[in-house]
Amino acid sequence: MAQRLDSSDSGFAAAFDAFIAKDRDGGADVSAVVRDVIADIRKDGMDALKSYTSKFDGFELGEDNLRVTAAEIDKAEAECDKDDLKALDFAAARIRAYHEKQIPSDVRYKDDDGVTLGWRWTAVDAAGLYAPGGRAAYPSSVLMNAIPAKVAGVSRLAMVTPAPGGDMNPLVLAAAKRAGIDEIYRIGGAQAVAALAYGAGPIAPVDVIVGPGNAYVAEAKRQVFGQVGIDSVAGPSEILVVSDGKSDPNWIAADLLSQAEHDPSSQSVLITDDAGFADRVEEAVRSQLAESPRREIAEAAWNDNSAIIIVSSLEEAPALVDRIAPEHLELAVDDPDALLNKVRHAGAIFLGRHAPEAIGDYVAGPDHVLPTARAARYASGLSVLDFMKRSSIIGCDETALSKLGPEAARLADAEGLPAHAKSVRVRLK
Amino acid sequence: MAQRLDSSDSGFAAAFDAFIAKDRDGGADVSAVVRDVIADIRKDGMDALKSYTSKFDGFELGEDNLRVTAAEIDKAEAECDKDDLKALDFAAARIRAYHEKQIPSDVRYKDDDGVTLGWRWTAVDAAGLYAPGGRAAYPSSVLMNAIPAKVAGVSRLAMVTPAPGGDMNPLVLAAAKRAGIDEIYRIGGAQAVAALAYGAGPIAPVDVIVGPGNAYVAEAKRQVFGQVGIDSVAGPSEILVVSDGKSDPNWIAADLLSQAEHDPSSQSVLITDDAGFADRVEEAVRSQLAESPRREIAEAAWNDNSAIIIVSSLEEAPALVDRIAPEHLELAVDDPDALLNKVRHAGAIFLGRHAPEAIGDYVAGPDHVLPTARAARYASGLSVLDFMKRSSIIGCDETALSKLGPEAARLADAEGLPAHAKSVRVRLK
Repeated sequence: MAQRLDSSDSGFAAAFDAFIAKDRDGGADVSAVVRDVIADIRKDGMDALKSYTSKFDGFELGEDNLRVTAAEIDKAEAECDKDDLKALDFAAARIRAYHEKQIPSDVRYKDDDGVTLGWRWTAVDAAGLYAPGGRAAYPSSVLMNAIPAKVAGVSRLAMVTPAPGGDMNPLVLAAAKRAGIDEIYRIGGAQAVAALAYGAGPIAPVDVIVGPGNAYVAEAKRQVFGQVGIDSVAGPSEILVVSDGKSDPNWIAADLLSQAEHDPSSQSVLITDDAGFADRVEEAVRSQLAESPRREIAEAAWNDNSAIIIVSSLEEAPALVDRIAPEHLELAVDDPDALLNKVRHAGAIFLGRHAPEAIGDYVAGPDHVLPTARAARYASGLSVLDFMKRSSIIGCDETALSKLGPEAARLADAEGLPAHAKSVRVRLK
Repeated sequence: MAQRLDSSDSGFAAAFDAFIAKDRDGGADVSAVVRDVIADIRKDGMDALKSYTSKFDGFELGEDNLRVTAAEIDKAEAECDKDDLKALDFAAARIRAYHEKQIPSDVRYKDDDGVTLGWRWTAVDAAGLYAPGGRAAYPSSVLMNAIPAKVAGVSRLAMVTPAPGGDMNPLVLAAAKRAGIDEIYRIGGAQAVAALAYGAGPIAPVDVIVGPGNAYVAEAKRQVFGQVGIDSVAGPSEILVVSDGKSDPNWIAADLLSQAEHDPSSQSVLITDDAGFADRVEEAVRSQLAESPRREIAEAAWNDNSAIIIVSSLEEAPALVDRIAPEHLELAVDDPDALLNKVRHAGAIFLGRHAPEAIGDYVAGPDHVLPTARAARYASGLSVLDFMKRSSIIGCDETALSKLGPEAARLADAEGLPAHAKSVRVRLK
């Protein structure tokens, strides 16, 4: 059973603090192992890739099977269910349409002192995408990671994905084709991240690496940060549903379990002002768990990491939401906008009773790569901006410099940087 | 003497590759030391802060002198030269005006399927700013790091800065006051970063940590990333000047030395199509070095890390610029916009012969916190966006869900996530 907290209990503040402080990530320190893997790839390149792949993915990697060919992709696509492909196309089009609205504008102007100012956005040259393989192969993640890169204008997008025994998920390959991925390599783990960051064999280095993975992949991304850009380091998934007593308990239970089924370390939370409704949701969770094909996972997440929080009024919800800063937030009430305006920290916010979080996972359009583990306090979901960078622009003519120069030189003097001051004064009459 | 490369030499490609591959950062592995410091702060809080401060900054830290008081700030301000304060005000106003243009817009719309979509930007609640102290105390850096946070709407901005012997630079305090910093603490090093990330004594944890520092500070930021957001990990400064033969060699020499004087690991590069001009710049560098108060530093940076690259035509410059991806790029030519349009990777771009990089360091307005060490391939300078995050918004009514739901459920089935599918289907008629 999920933990039950009641905001009117005297111990609520302490219990809530303990709940949000809980580390669901295990936190095994894999940094030393990952450091060795990266060093091996930097030193031995393709040879190191071969030996790690043989060890972890159980097949002999060579120049002939490292990269997935166009013929292999077409063959995989032909194996896919036609309706699945149709659904992928539907999703891809909606994801593309949403992300196209994120393309930022350049700015350029001359200010009152005659200084030309502005900025210009450009795409990175090359991006790498990690897609988990084997058990958890998610074509939707390929779309969600790759389409923003292509919309940004990245000309070279390379995907790595572990291929246990050399095999790949056909729908993942079909998604990669739809997303416009340029290169696909049969490698995974920290070694694949290192190969993308530093290059290995025929794989040229990229500028940015995105995509979810296990603890080794996450740590590898953290360690190559600086050599390349990375998106956030993803943790276990979360959902927080705020609902009054008028929602269908079956709907809300299904939403809570849709995150719980991801992983035993996932978290599902319900905040409601109706204790009777909370009971009904809990009962629905129990009955849906009983018939769930992923019962073991979902039950562990529900029992070990989840909570139902009873509040006296939904007015109390926004402060609690902001403390939790959930990856996904559902506002299952009649007037979700009223709550939306009071909430600040959440990765994606779902409005109304007919917006289950799973819609956002697949087809709504916004990215499903979102900040987890309270990172929504400071981080955003993946976007076109993760594949672009901004150059500042500063232009002066003689008149503009005559206005700004003396103040700049004065500050350079004050900071004890005489060559800075000289580079300005040498230009002043 | 700086290295001289000529693009018409047969060995140029290899020599250029070696030049940009050079690691100027030393790269001592301080990660184990920093890991211990962070663990100590998390375990012992204020007591650990006290002992590190006693050891590294040479004074006894207590609850009474940890935080700089408003009276101390006013007293420091009164000690400052009035013209220095005027210059700070001038800089602050221009930095604020530029960053105000970066405030992003929210988006909300209903698409053809009746789905409500959009996003909303909000500021982080609290940000921490690391300001180096002692030898290298830079009031301009305080403005450049703090003003974007305040423009973003951050309500709590805490600054940490090491205070050797307990003393602080008055102009740094005056800059902090102008920038609207809310709390200033006399602590530095990895221990200060850990205190901002996890809290210690009276210091409450923040959500984002920005600001430059030494190798320990940089590594600490890398290690707390995930617990908090961070800006980029800064390395030694760089300048790349592209000039034809018509610039004043004294001006260009001064620009090259303005970065060289920062640190022995700084880098200055000139690309020109005029070998005679290159000789004149080199001579001017030599003569300016001879009279430089920071000769030892600047000479080391010039001799060990810098280069003059001769090209047959400035048409060759953009490709070389993009390989170097410099922090600062000056285009000292008659038509800088023609070059600007061909260059893709640079942190800040200075247009024309009257725009020395030092103008951007102090008063132009754009941020002087910029990507170094080729990070301009994927990273941007500090901006208002570093202190904000974006929540996606997704709303469906019954009709919209009826259009999107079946495709979402189909993909959930294909990925083997039945509770995802159920959360959609349970809502469909």
